[in-house]
Amino acid sequence: MVNFKGVDILDGAQFSREEIEHILAVTAEFDNRLKTEHKVALADGYLMGALFFEPSTRTRLSFEAAMHRLGGDVIGFADAGATSAKKGESLSDTIRSVDQYVDLIAMRHPQVGAARVAAEAAEAVVLNGGDGAGQHPTQALLDLYTIRTERGGIDGKTVVLCGDLKHGRTVHAGVELYKHYGCRLVFVAPDQLRMPDEITASLKSHGVVVEETTNLEHALADADVFYMTRIQKERFADPAEYERLKGSYILNRELIERVNPGVTILHPLPRVDEIATDVDDLSGAAYFRQMRNGVTTRMALIALVLGLL
Amino acid sequence: MVNFKGVDILDGAQFSREEIEHILAVTAEFDNRLKTEHKVALADGYLMGALFFEPSTRTRLSFEAAMHRLGGDVIGFADAGATSAKKGESLSDTIRSVDQYVDLIAMRHPQVGAARVAAEAAEAVVLNGGDGAGQHPTQALLDLYTIRTERGGIDGKTVVLCGDLKHGRTVHAGVELYKHYGCRLVFVAPDQLRMPDEITASLKSHGVVVEETTNLEHALADADVFYMTRIQKERFADPAEYERLKGSYILNRELIERVNPGVTILHPLPRVDEIATDVDDLSGAAYFRQMRNGVTTRMALIALVLGLL
Amino acid sequence: MVNFKGVDILDGAQFSREEIEHILAVTAEFDNRLKTEHKVALADGYLMGALFFEPSTRTRLSFEAAMHRLGGDVIGFADAGATSAKKGESLSDTIRSVDQYVDLIAMRHPQVGAARVAAEAAEAVVLNGGDGAGQHPTQALLDLYTIRTERGGIDGKTVVLCGDLKHGRTVHAGVELYKHYGCRLVFVAPDQLRMPDEITASLKSHGVVVEETTNLEHALADADVFYMTRIQKERFADPAEYERLKGSYILNRELIERVNPGVTILHPLPRVDEIATDVDDLSGAAYFRQMRNGVTTRMALIALVLGLL
Repeated sequence: MVNFKGVDILDGAQFSREEIEHILAVTAEFDNRLKTEHKVALADGYLMGALFFEPSTRTRLSFEAAMHRLGGDVIGFADAGATSAKKGESLSDTIRSVDQYVDLIAMRHPQVGAARVAAEAAEAVVLNGGDGAGQHPTQALLDLYTIRTERGGIDGKTVVLCGDLKHGRTVHAGVELYKHYGCRLVFVAPDQLRMPDEITASLKSHGVVVEETTNLEHALADADVFYMTRIQKERFADPAEYERLKGSYILNRELIERVNPGVTILHPLPRVDEIATDVDDLSGAAYFRQMRNGVTTRMALIALVLGLL
Repeated sequence: MVNFKGVDILDGAQFSREEIEHILAVTAEFDNRLKTEHKVALADGYLMGALFFEPSTRTRLSFEAAMHRLGGDVIGFADAGATSAKKGESLSDTIRSVDQYVDLIAMRHPQVGAARVAAEAAEAVVLNGGDGAGQHPTQALLDLYTIRTERGGIDGKTVVLCGDLKHGRTVHAGVELYKHYGCRLVFVAPDQLRMPDEITASLKSHGVVVEETTNLEHALADADVFYMTRIQKERFADPAEYERLKGSYILNRELIERVNPGVTILHPLPRVDEIATDVDDLSGAAYFRQMRNGVTTRMALIALVLGLL
Repeated sequence: MVNFKGVDILDGAQFSREEIEHILAVTAEFDNRLKTEHKVALADGYLMGALFFEPSTRTRLSFEAAMHRLGGDVIGFADAGATSAKKGESLSDTIRSVDQYVDLIAMRHPQVGAARVAAEAAEAVVLNGGDGAGQHPTQALLDLYTIRTERGGIDGKTVVLCGDLKHGRTVHAGVELYKHYGCRLVFVAPDQLRMPDEITASLKSHGVVVEETTNLEHALADADVFYMTRIQKERFADPAEYERLKGSYILNRELIERVNPGVTILHPLPRVDEIATDVDDLSGAAYFRQMRNGVTTRMALIALVLGLL
């Protein structure tokens, strides 16, 4: 029997398939209810702390929207500038203080492992909204939910992950979920930004079929889902190398229509140039629907960890 | 039959007189109800995105107060620093993302036309809270409501607009409303900050009586309403020119009591020196009441565009 | 008969013992109710302006949590950067504008006396959340409530105040309350950061027993309550002097267990090094419970000044 009450949501590896299925089922229920209702008032009177030590409009607003759609309230901050961290306070102390005010904490922090530190300090449940290049489990769950709704299922799908796979916390959290569904994973990245070997090795040891390539078009050809991420210029020591490579990792409408018109395109956003805007109107361009699923997935997680279901 | 459900509020020129009258009538109703109630819970469960790409305490808090007084909730940001714009995301993408979370969007942006771009990107209704030197229709409507409540009517009044008429989005939006009421408009500004010729010409072509002068005292003498705006030092290439002129565009108590003690004084605020604080106690000093009308006017607009009335 | 409806909460000296007792009794009631409820919905429909002209995560979030736990809503800002102050607007004008939107104002400001200026400008009630090196009455009240709950009473207790007593608005507000309870006060501070003579003299003229020392260990030995505050490096002209002194004003577990294991330790937080983290597990380490009491104390004050009880 799955029970998430009081469970911190820290990384993608913490879930069994049964647990993932439960989260996705609750998400589907909220998704359905929000088609006719503006609010599902399960969390009336509950208070969430949205502690964003690093700015993230999208993830912060998504968590806050989820809490409000559940009837709850939110306090918090949008960047570390307004916190006591600059007075020298430890993360643990900041968390233990806010812990006195709220019923659950959603947080983002620039350091890997920060969410775990917070979870140890707080009595309230902690939802990790991204910790440096570490994990981003709520994003991974909403991605999975989007694959199911867009493709009608997850099992056995070919999922291409493309872009900065070295630093991408979204994909790091994601592969921990895909492995429960027998997905074939294809990693497309420049050499400098390859998926870390320990992650690839771990996946293979779990029997996951993993392929690596630098050729986007080849990978696109037989993808069910193409998950694009942003390549950041500042990751390259040599700017010329960045300029040379970035053109290799761009999706545009002509390419998709020629190679694989039925593919589903995901992206955690924000994008810069890696998906041309002429892709947006394709039926497989699911990245804005993916944003909407972020709200319902987080509603599910909040309701579950608060024990409201 | 006036119906604003789903209508973006982008500029002052979009309204017919009948539509303006409907907005003012709803505003009056909320104004009346808030005298005895703290909240008119029409928007319970609705969520507003307050997206301020440029800081504006007054307009942002006014929109947020309006949404809360209607029983709704708010998410958003107070400046662009915490957004993905700095990661290179387009305005359209930011809006399309937030659009997945909320039921309506109130926004301010430093660029002219930004609200229209947002309205095209979003399915949710967009309320323009100021776009650069462009438009600021909600301010114009609250100004009009204030004139009615302070003067007992709008038709045929002499309205003096003074200060920076070149860049003032408030007055640009305002004149589009006054023209429906046969107001006589008097523009008082230094040469560098004159009302743009195309606006003046357009008003005249609609039969509006427009006068221009650089003499504040003369204009004050027969004004029903004197609408003061702030002159910003940075608009002048020559600081000495600014210093020379600014003294010509100051209202003080002595002047008002001598020239036109019955005049109604409006100002969108913040003010610096252009209205001396000794004016505040005059019965015609309506600029703080004008702030209160901002909440009820925005309540009316929110309730109307959401189709709650 | 104590009646706080409409009363601004500006400094610790404004309260009679009877009034303090009433506030503490209401706090105890909310404290008790929050053990089984998430919200005590007395302020439904009310709107608080949280105006923090100076960042303070803890105090701001505590006020906001209090308002939400009462069922009310909050608008505001977390630092002065997003306000019109930088456009040259006076504090009084900013307050008079927000006053049109809200039912009460909680504020922090870097200047001594700012809360009083605001209270004169606003019709809404003002709660001072700290004004420069001036006052911080809500903190003082929650400290007092914590002493009562931790020690079973306040009367006649020996309270040691340690750290920066010169600039500490918390302790300045606090001594104004302790004097009603016959507390023996011991001040421990380096010479540069002594309690201002006028405060000490005023306390003595009210019959309060006051002692001053630079010896922390001596003071700790017979303390019921040890109230630690942070010493800020920037207060010292000579960094070497700071380095020399700071070691003298540190509480650690070994010291407490050796000298006075039964003492209650308070701190307004954030702390840096002045309380070692090995103290946190001692039963007398009450500073995180003190944070929780901040919410209930502020709930009591909000409910009282709004006349909801």
